[in-house]
Amino acid sequence: MHTRNNSTDKDVTVTGPTPTRDDKFSFGLWTVGYNGTDPFGGPTREHLDTVHVVEKLAELGAYGLTFHDDDLFPFGSTDEVRQTEIERLKQALADTGLIIPMVTTNLFSAPVFKDGGFTSNDRAVRRFALRKVLRNIDLAAELGAKTFVMWGGREGAEYDAAKDIRAALERYREAVNLLGDYVTDKGYDLRFAIEPKPNEPRGDILLPTLGHALAFIETLERPELVGINPEVGHEQMAGLNFAAGIAQALYQGKLFHIDLNGQRGIKYDQDLVFAHGDLYNAFALVDLLENGSPAGGPTYDGPRHFDYKPSRTEDETGVWESAKANMANYLILKERAAAFRADPEVQEALEAAKVTELGKPTLNEGESYDDLLADRSAFEDFDASAYLGGKGFGFVRLQQLATEHLLGARG
Amino acid sequence: MHTRNNSTDKDVTVTGPTPTRDDKFSFGLWTVGYNGTDPFGGPTREHLDTVHVVEKLAELGAYGLTFHDDDLFPFGSTDEVRQTEIERLKQALADTGLIIPMVTTNLFSAPVFKDGGFTSNDRAVRRFALRKVLRNIDLAAELGAKTFVMWGGREGAEYDAAKDIRAALERYREAVNLLGDYVTDKGYDLRFAIEPKPNEPRGDILLPTLGHALAFIETLERPELVGINPEVGHEQMAGLNFAAGIAQALYQGKLFHIDLNGQRGIKYDQDLVFAHGDLYNAFALVDLLENGSPAGGPTYDGPRHFDYKPSRTEDETGVWESAKANMANYLILKERAAAFRADPEVQEALEAAKVTELGKPTLNEGESYDDLLADRSAFEDFDASAYLGGKGFGFVRLQQLATEHLLGARG
Amino acid sequence: MHTRNNSTDKDVTVTGPTPTRDDKFSFGLWTVGYNGTDPFGGPTREHLDTVHVVEKLAELGAYGLTFHDDDLFPFGSTDEVRQTEIERLKQALADTGLIIPMVTTNLFSAPVFKDGGFTSNDRAVRRFALRKVLRNIDLAAELGAKTFVMWGGREGAEYDAAKDIRAALERYREAVNLLGDYVTDKGYDLRFAIEPKPNEPRGDILLPTLGHALAFIETLERPELVGINPEVGHEQMAGLNFAAGIAQALYQGKLFHIDLNGQRGIKYDQDLVFAHGDLYNAFALVDLLENGSPAGGPTYDGPRHFDYKPSRTEDETGVWESAKANMANYLILKERAAAFRADPEVQEALEAAKVTELGKPTLNEGESYDDLLADRSAFEDFDASAYLGGKGFGFVRLQQLATEHLLGARG
Amino acid sequence: MHTRNNSTDKDVTVTGPTPTRDDKFSFGLWTVGYNGTDPFGGPTREHLDTVHVVEKLAELGAYGLTFHDDDLFPFGSTDEVRQTEIERLKQALADTGLIIPMVTTNLFSAPVFKDGGFTSNDRAVRRFALRKVLRNIDLAAELGAKTFVMWGGREGAEYDAAKDIRAALERYREAVNLLGDYVTDKGYDLRFAIEPKPNEPRGDILLPTLGHALAFIETLERPELVGINPEVGHEQMAGLNFAAGIAQALYQGKLFHIDLNGQRGIKYDQDLVFAHGDLYNAFALVDLLENGSPAGGPTYDGPRHFDYKPSRTEDETGVWESAKANMANYLILKERAAAFRADPEVQEALEAAKVTELGKPTLNEGESYDDLLADRSAFEDFDASAYLGGKGFGFVRLQQLATEHLLGARG
Repeated sequence: MHTRNNSTDKDVTVTGPTPTRDDKFSFGLWTVGYNGTDPFGGPTREHLDTVHVVEKLAELGAYGLTFHDDDLFPFGSTDEVRQTEIERLKQALADTGLIIPMVTTNLFSAPVFKDGGFTSNDRAVRRFALRKVLRNIDLAAELGAKTFVMWGGREGAEYDAAKDIRAALERYREAVNLLGDYVTDKGYDLRFAIEPKPNEPRGDILLPTLGHALAFIETLERPELVGINPEVGHEQMAGLNFAAGIAQALYQGKLFHIDLNGQRGIKYDQDLVFAHGDLYNAFALVDLLENGSPAGGPTYDGPRHFDYKPSRTEDETGVWESAKANMANYLILKERAAAFRADPEVQEALEAAKVTELGKPTLNEGESYDDLLADRSAFEDFDASAYLGGKGFGFVRLQQLATEHLLGARG
Repeated sequence: MHTRNNSTDKDVTVTGPTPTRDDKFSFGLWTVGYNGTDPFGGPTREHLDTVHVVEKLAELGAYGLTFHDDDLFPFGSTDEVRQTEIERLKQALADTGLIIPMVTTNLFSAPVFKDGGFTSNDRAVRRFALRKVLRNIDLAAELGAKTFVMWGGREGAEYDAAKDIRAALERYREAVNLLGDYVTDKGYDLRFAIEPKPNEPRGDILLPTLGHALAFIETLERPELVGINPEVGHEQMAGLNFAAGIAQALYQGKLFHIDLNGQRGIKYDQDLVFAHGDLYNAFALVDLLENGSPAGGPTYDGPRHFDYKPSRTEDETGVWESAKANMANYLILKERAAAFRADPEVQEALEAAKVTELGKPTLNEGESYDDLLADRSAFEDFDASAYLGGKGFGFVRLQQLATEHLLGARG
Repeated sequence: MHTRNNSTDKDVTVTGPTPTRDDKFSFGLWTVGYNGTDPFGGPTREHLDTVHVVEKLAELGAYGLTFHDDDLFPFGSTDEVRQTEIERLKQALADTGLIIPMVTTNLFSAPVFKDGGFTSNDRAVRRFALRKVLRNIDLAAELGAKTFVMWGGREGAEYDAAKDIRAALERYREAVNLLGDYVTDKGYDLRFAIEPKPNEPRGDILLPTLGHALAFIETLERPELVGINPEVGHEQMAGLNFAAGIAQALYQGKLFHIDLNGQRGIKYDQDLVFAHGDLYNAFALVDLLENGSPAGGPTYDGPRHFDYKPSRTEDETGVWESAKANMANYLILKERAAAFRADPEVQEALEAAKVTELGKPTLNEGESYDDLLADRSAFEDFDASAYLGGKGFGFVRLQQLATEHLLGARG
Repeated sequence: MHTRNNSTDKDVTVTGPTPTRDDKFSFGLWTVGYNGTDPFGGPTREHLDTVHVVEKLAELGAYGLTFHDDDLFPFGSTDEVRQTEIERLKQALADTGLIIPMVTTNLFSAPVFKDGGFTSNDRAVRRFALRKVLRNIDLAAELGAKTFVMWGGREGAEYDAAKDIRAALERYREAVNLLGDYVTDKGYDLRFAIEPKPNEPRGDILLPTLGHALAFIETLERPELVGINPEVGHEQMAGLNFAAGIAQALYQGKLFHIDLNGQRGIKYDQDLVFAHGDLYNAFALVDLLENGSPAGGPTYDGPRHFDYKPSRTEDETGVWESAKANMANYLILKERAAAFRADPEVQEALEAAKVTELGKPTLNEGESYDDLLADRSAFEDFDASAYLGGKGFGFVRLQQLATEHLLGARG
């Protein structure tokens, strides 16, 4: 499906499959635009102009750009500056064909949000946050975005006594309910996606994992409007299996958007290039998104959105190399996953490991608990002792097959 | 409320408040009964007889005992052995007044469950597991238990390809739906509580955090019958804030049971004595369970259940010392929390930190988004710049007050 | 020893023991001076002038100030600006009596150090770094500092292929050897202290734990000149027991300086107030520093240096409250540790747990391995089976005694 | 060098390069012999006879077997049983040509070692432990082992007050000094290798990382006799970069032995198949062991020892599949590493990233600090500002090249 790119022109040395717009790759303006500031140092790169970013991403094969309001026009911009930047963006989109699949609001950088936005202890801040988001929703709708992401990075606390979690959930609920009313009344074709994170920049963040966010959504007045935007690194910062979490999100019909990047274990948020972290889990993820679960089930049809940071050691050439690497890795893993699924030995091993048998209901069709209780083969005559020394599942063999496919070491 | 116990009789040197049955302290039979086996060594203690455990716990001030079926009678016991052990337990309960507030089923120790119970890839195992649980539910009801805990410790995988998570969730759902029908039809006064854990003994476990479990419950046919049984150490093994998670569980009305113990960070499951881990979070937890959230809200009325392991280095004397320590720590922290709440300086500091302001809705009564959009004080005239260099929240002061109360260092 | 301070003047509400200069509390200029910048937001506080900081710290009871060169005068300052700031500092020291026990060099903030200083892949950067440090050593000596700390925060990599670790160690060694020659030849009364950290801002940092640093020191030409400056949070970011690490550093005679702060588990570097993290380990640490190990051994006589960050949510009032909290917590824990050691029941429990027996050599005086091999009581006649069900160590009781002392809950 | 094995005979489906004895692959008797016991369940597999293990490993291409005394003959065996098992092993070695490169002593499983061996608080236990080790050293020498590994898995504590770390280090030192005297006097050609681990089965273990062990070794009377035996998963349980640690061990001349396995992040000790964990780090490790560091430096010539556990879900077929997978993965990664090194684009990228420049001394030949201070180009005329926006290192490109080589995705 993809042509190989082995060109070695000056700043494009990454090889591998070439992305096309059908791949639905999108990037945050703040990702390639990251200037290198971190807790221990200032910028190592100059600001990148939005129009330049749009042109470059289009050239590299991306189909979408996303942004926080403050990425496009600085916090506190006059209406005029704001409008100028919006118009420049629109023109660049028109010139390149890039689209804006998602927009999000920055409720975490300015000092006013130092205790959060929707759940700041300070009520005036909460009201200000709501206004900032409502304004940005209008912009999102205007630009045709279909998803509005909410990352509550400052909604949290360092100290248990500093935050009434019950009240915070109530306030978060109040905010999302209001936004749901707003987009519904306005007729915007826009859904919300909550992005969970366990910690950083707060000691603990509200809705720390995708599970907590999925649970919270069920308390909302319009749950159908709200899903999640999980990020690889965020779940992995809690030591959780990202692909497994995505499977639950798909199961619950809530994977509205996804943030792809790389993380090397439980530590600070690294935002590495996709697959430059846990390769096995990246492989499982792409396999799931592209091919669904082994027993069938939904795949993911939305943007493949990269929320990463080009390493602070890089100059602009490195920025674009890293952007390319994200897409190349996704496409390589997609090829590997297809080969894995198509391999007859893998199919046989999945069968032997009874992976597919899990798709079969435990009860017979129409079987009641009375029927089950009456089935002596299920209990009284069942030979549990056969599982000592026997009835191995062959999971290691399966993992080795996955390893060899991942490493391109089969056939 | 509690008398001090400073006695120094031979094997009871723990001081502090003396527990009473009103404190609702319960212990798993497998906790004080833990024989010391771990991945690198065999038993260091002999088996404790159930009757002895019941007598001892009653003597120490506990009100309840809980158990897995296999704790009471070994896996594969004949009906006769099983019944004998049940009768011995009943007699001991009658003799001591101890009750059985909760029962749970072991679907993880026997070789047959090496890939789990409800979600084993092997369908015959799933049917066997259902039968084992149904039988144990009858016993739970017979003994008057009000909660049936489900810890799916083996429901999971080491390798991504080994488990179809979507199918596993479907099978788990199928099982819980059947159990819900069963207790409903039988008229049992029994609710279910799912106990999450991120990993160990599997590489990744299904429903790894309380958030994932809360989300899953919403997919069930009888969600009202199913809540959660979070364990301190399990959430902390994912680096999550346990007290914050409990606040969300209370918010969603799902804290059906709780497992108290201690854990020192992200590592293997330690099951230390309650509060012998993260003291700050233990303090916040007891404060929340006893006093509710600062802006009000529900407290927890169920058993304070200790799911811990006496350290493998201890002999039986150490077992009972550790049992006492659990209760003593809870009661000390309860006293500290009461004093914290009652301290006028704390109240003033909570006010100054606007912790209580978070309980106040962001919108005025009856305010619509149109009203909010029309309120210039909320946005156009709002002075966001005042938060740079000003409007500090005073959270560190609050934490220091909490510290000093926790340490008993306030006048 | 300390008078109680229960005053409630406007910005000083922290209670507890009052620090004096004899307590040797010191603070980094960058700590109280932290402006709130983090990876997701800019400053929330204005710059604090050095003279103001010195005056304030003196007033609160600290005895020392420490700084990086770039804290005092911005990177790239002219000689004139640099000298002006140095003179202002000297005058403030003279006015207040505060001293400069330690100085350190910033080799991590400026873009030139994006791949580190002493071990940057770029040789010109390494030479520049050496020059920057040499100049700062002269300043340290001029100001009477006794310790020169080296935190190599940027010495590391995100990717394995990006850094030749062997070569990096060789370059680090080359640098420290040169510095050792320099201070020796100049006759400076200055020792070096390496500060380890596992990660952040780099994916992995060279010499990630105090163990790695201690090992490296043995490869130097002048190992006697070089020790370590461990930081509570840094070791805890690797899940390591800080107090245990300090015990090894003391054992090897290498605890030249110490950074006290708080960290809540394995996550980003939090730099909380001392003891606002793992309270048990903070207690064990203060006990060790003040009282030595149970079987005797050296205590720590150097500065109690706080390397923390006032939370970004605070204004200047909160900055000074947090500074006070560090000292108050140290002094409270010091009191608790003294009481713990003095408690006869604790002494008895330590004896029962054979903690003190570990101080006794395993071999008898003058015993050879031949003697040991001939001692049948040691092996042939030794009853190993007595340890099953018996010979419990009573460690849980000991921990409960520690808990109750820590919580101020003993008679 | 290796022939491909794509055979599909019944229990050998793993493909990839075929191992030979020149690859120096060795396995612990306890690894393939692991019966599946873990903290939440008993055995799932029957005991494997030693002779069968030897024959099977020889057949699969391993060259060595290692063991703890208690693996070969149960703790407390009579001399007769012990000798019988030793003779059976010797015969099997003679029959197959397998060798015993390493032996180790179990000081952690029996109840007597519940507080450790060399550093148990109980002096009688320490003496017993020394005797057990001395006896096993004789056996190691008799069998021709060259390395004697010491994993002090129970040397540690759950509670800070329970262990005097200084005294524990002193006792550990006393023990190793005695063992050093013993092998020296006996003329045994045997070196010691300390195996570090941060925690599990103890809350914290003495010498938690390879760094701590390297530092400790320098305090010994015969440091030249003692090195380390680092294990992939153990360092990764502390979030540390294993390959970087190995580079330091090689730098300090102390990599006497190595334990290869897989671990997926900071959690319980998983002991997965080698490379079934962090693939990037496994790749970097094999590259380092086989090819040395980029600027040259020593490689590793000892056994490639697998210390892993076949997953508990497997039967004996799975045991041997997993054994093969370890070797196959090593050999695949070895091929990948050779191709990575040989790729001219990689060489060019390493050059561009100045990785090789780090091998060049920072000082010119014979340059003194006075010369450096006089070199204006190093400081006064150095353009530090060029690093803002320029002088990117190209590390992401390098990582992408490594990724593509690892994935077998380079032309």
